[in-house]
Amino acid sequence: MNKIKTTKRKLQIGVMGSAIDLNYEKKIEKIAEEVGKLIAKTGNITVYGAEKDYDSLSTAAARGSKKAGGLTVGVTYGTGKDIWDKEGNTDVLICSGLERGGGREFVLVNSCDGIIAISGGSGTMTEMLIAYQLNIPVVVIKGTGGWSDEMADKYFDNRKRLKVISAKSPEEAVRKIVGIIKQSNEKE
Amino acid sequence: MNKIKTTKRKLQIGVMGSAIDLNYEKKIEKIAEEVGKLIAKTGNITVYGAEKDYDSLSTAAARGSKKAGGLTVGVTYGTGKDIWDKEGNTDVLICSGLERGGGREFVLVNSCDGIIAISGGSGTMTEMLIAYQLNIPVVVIKGTGGWSDEMADKYFDNRKRLKVISAKSPEEAVRKIVGIIKQSNEKE
Amino acid sequence: MNKIKTTKRKLQIGVMGSAIDLNYEKKIEKIAEEVGKLIAKTGNITVYGAEKDYDSLSTAAARGSKKAGGLTVGVTYGTGKDIWDKEGNTDVLICSGLERGGGREFVLVNSCDGIIAISGGSGTMTEMLIAYQLNIPVVVIKGTGGWSDEMADKYFDNRKRLKVISAKSPEEAVRKIVGIIKQSNEKE
Amino acid sequence: MNKIKTTKRKLQIGVMGSAIDLNYEKKIEKIAEEVGKLIAKTGNITVYGAEKDYDSLSTAAARGSKKAGGLTVGVTYGTGKDIWDKEGNTDVLICSGLERGGGREFVLVNSCDGIIAISGGSGTMTEMLIAYQLNIPVVVIKGTGGWSDEMADKYFDNRKRLKVISAKSPEEAVRKIVGIIKQSNEKE
Repeated sequence: MNKIKTTKRKLQIGVMGSAIDLNYEKKIEKIAEEVGKLIAKTGNITVYGAEKDYDSLSTAAARGSKKAGGLTVGVTYGTGKDIWDKEGNTDVLICSGLERGGGREFVLVNSCDGIIAISGGSGTMTEMLIAYQLNIPVVVIKGTGGWSDEMADKYFDNRKRLKVISAKSPEEAVRKIVGIIKQSNEKE
Repeated sequence: MNKIKTTKRKLQIGVMGSAIDLNYEKKIEKIAEEVGKLIAKTGNITVYGAEKDYDSLSTAAARGSKKAGGLTVGVTYGTGKDIWDKEGNTDVLICSGLERGGGREFVLVNSCDGIIAISGGSGTMTEMLIAYQLNIPVVVIKGTGGWSDEMADKYFDNRKRLKVISAKSPEEAVRKIVGIIKQSNEKE
Repeated sequence: MNKIKTTKRKLQIGVMGSAIDLNYEKKIEKIAEEVGKLIAKTGNITVYGAEKDYDSLSTAAARGSKKAGGLTVGVTYGTGKDIWDKEGNTDVLICSGLERGGGREFVLVNSCDGIIAISGGSGTMTEMLIAYQLNIPVVVIKGTGGWSDEMADKYFDNRKRLKVISAKSPEEAVRKIVGIIKQSNEKE
Repeated sequence: MNKIKTTKRKLQIGVMGSAIDLNYEKKIEKIAEEVGKLIAKTGNITVYGAEKDYDSLSTAAARGSKKAGGLTVGVTYGTGKDIWDKEGNTDVLICSGLERGGGREFVLVNSCDGIIAISGGSGTMTEMLIAYQLNIPVVVIKGTGGWSDEMADKYFDNRKRLKVISAKSPEEAVRKIVGIIKQSNEKE
């Protein structure tokens, strides 16, 4: 994993998942909000992909985090700061200058100490693959469908770097990602 | 697909595939070289991911293309132009300023009219996913293993945009990608 | 200026200035720290360019902000989170994936609602020019030397978009940048 | 300067200058075309910033180069390949995925072995500063106005890396930039 010699910074945990056009169910959205809430309760930061045009599981996690008093960071694409969240769920807004579909996602994932994925289409799979290539740990919540279910307990290729860790609940997901990142930081 | 209103520009066909550390067989490397050679014979441009430290199927395609007198464009990461290819197989070198693992790949794929994938690990899968998200057509060569085989004739998610087209040989792959791009350009 | 329809987010104020190899005086460093401190006192966020190898006026501003209990965001280059600040002056760390010398700076400035520049060499001038091109307001502190002094009360070209505002002190600089951003947000 | 150990690749010479909204005179546009033509005559590649909405001196250089049978590379912003040039003056089109105003310009300049600047507003000045920071040599044509005239024979800061070389004509500019790049390559 990437060496992070300072442990003073709070952990930056990315929550990735389907955009609204993939028609996720309300219960999956609640899982995403719960993940955000639990990250906030551990005192850590929720990093999410801020869209300008629609809702997503990633945005839902930011909402959950904010409700629990957590700090949230949204990473958006292109230029211009007029994001979809108008409710104040975004404490820090990063404009990557890069377009969506891989570019913005690179800045987003690269800025995380670890990520949690929920369901997910092509965008979420791209984000998990970027994490793998940058040695950033990935936890998926099983039973949420999409690429998260598909990749649970697998490697992204034969290099067998970091295996995708699976979790059965938001609690387990947050506990595991925090544990993995802390363990990695202590080793260094 | 992306609208390309000028047909005066030659087609820019990306060839993506495993890096050498994934231990591809010599026969797979020959397939990659053959793909590059055939792109050159159609009079089109081969776009590849120029590494600074090792060989890859993408680089092999540039070699093949150059042997057949084709024009090649390498897209590398970070800054500095000292790429792995020292034999002159790179006519144009683009330094994306972005790191590998998703960022450089975004510039690489975004600059292609279509891509052909051969075998492939996490990097190639990232590139195919970026193509899908940018509505850039993808052809994979079946029987080459890796993510190319895995994704043949499938969609990358339930949005069902462009299906991954499969081909049984370099000839079929080049014929299909050229056909798809030209058909798309004519429609507009 | 960019439209920012939500006023719920705290203002993100970038502080830009010379890197340590430009040998700035201690009194200039104190000005940078004071700027950060004052941004914190207005309840807003200090955005700075996080280096991995040396100190800078931008980093000094983050130090000042943190001392006053402010929230700080560092934007660094490439991959890897091992930045120069080991003292915990960076609350949120963004890894842009882009190299220094214009790329990282684009993400940095693009993420600011306004910037304050202090002295400055080629990097700071690049940042002011990016701000100008993105319609992000720039305040410079006069008497600090470098490109800040050079550009005070001028436009960056004949398009005459936003004029560089000059300030005589950290207090005036922070007051002016906050005022300009708020005024711009109200108009929309 | 950046180490370029292969001399097999043709030189990639960027031509930077004002966009049409800066109202450059016809004679300045002819200078830009002449620069492109002369780069082509040396057998080298013209790299330019491909816009999607208007003409520029950079585009004029590509036109000149193409008329003389040269190879041209356009670097554009965002996604989508529908650039302003519809006449076929762009042999290779690179889509940087980054927005204009510093991001696209970083990929553009980073991909050049050296640049020639003509007149120029904020964008051209940004490009010259990026070149300076990446140790890429800059030649300006004197008497063309804008930042090129302003910076002739100066350094961009007190680090005094590469001085801006001035030339009195397109001939001198192309001769000087080719000479500087070749000299630098031989040293290594």
